[in-house]
Amino acid sequence: MSRSSGSCPPAAVAGGSGARLVVLASHFSTSSHLGSEKEAALAADPSDGPTIFDKILWKEIPSQVVYEDEKTLAFRDISPQAPVHIIIIPKVKDGLSRLAKAEERHFKVMGHLLYAAKIIAKQEKLDDGFRIIINDGPNGCQSVYHLHIHLLGGRQMNWPPG
Amino acid sequence: MSRSSGSCPPAAVAGGSGARLVVLASHFSTSSHLGSEKEAALAADPSDGPTIFDKILWKEIPSQVVYEDEKTLAFRDISPQAPVHIIIIPKVKDGLSRLAKAEERHFKVMGHLLYAAKIIAKQEKLDDGFRIIINDGPNGCQSVYHLHIHLLGGRQMNWPPG
Repeated sequence: MSRSSGSCPPAAVAGGSGARLVVLASHFSTSSHLGSEKEAALAADPSDGPTIFDKILWKEIPSQVVYEDEKTLAFRDISPQAPVHIIIIPKVKDGLSRLAKAEERHFKVMGHLLYAAKIIAKQEKLDDGFRIIINDGPNGCQSVYHLHIHLLGGRQMNWPPG
Repeated sequence: MSRSSGSCPPAAVAGGSGARLVVLASHFSTSSHLGSEKEAALAADPSDGPTIFDKILWKEIPSQVVYEDEKTLAFRDISPQAPVHIIIIPKVKDGLSRLAKAEERHFKVMGHLLYAAKIIAKQEKLDDGFRIIINDGPNGCQSVYHLHIHLLGGRQMNWPPG
């Protein structure tokens, strides 16, 4: 799928098997910055259905896992934007396709995700600091509709944050 | 205070009254991008002491509050990096000078902060999406050592995130 240059990563399309190549282009290859904003928004599937992250959880697609506990899984982004770039997800989506869908019942799992980020940052020796990003919706560059945290470190991050 | 051009916002120095002008330069004026990375790191105070955010909580310094509940306060960043740029903080720091200091006891308050971000995003009509950022330490561009979430929206965010 050819895409024009843009400011979001190529969108991952969740669900059907035909979507896998697009998904791979987003999270499982080094091709980057191929998706324009609008195309990414259109291509991403904001439904509550299964996503590429379920395939990772189910081990249908390999990933470089760096951390796991009873509630969270963390693996390296294959299109890293910093020397350390890790994605942290809740194992059970429970309606959290995006942060905009958060309810009070999600307090604990969301706190757990941030705590996992702290643990992983320490594990990765990011003592000089790091950045946490959560993208919501097309304007936020969200490409997979399963809540996830980006943890970036190993270089000086810039401002504004994208 | 003259600073060379750099990639972090000017650092806010917490604590002593002499720091106020630096703080103002960071969060209370429209001057931006004055602090170099190293200067910002050196100028910021990574201690557990009071910060500019305490002064905001105590109403010693005015802020444009957009949301408040029993655990969190949210106010507009005066050096916004997007049409909507809001800072969300826990009212009680409880050792959370930075995410790297998070403990398991902080699960709930950290989840609460993310939930507050969702509520505020809705309130600000960011239906097309938004981005959450947490900066930790000098590499993350953290300038105030009181855990805080940046909520940015109202424009297409870019990738990489800074």
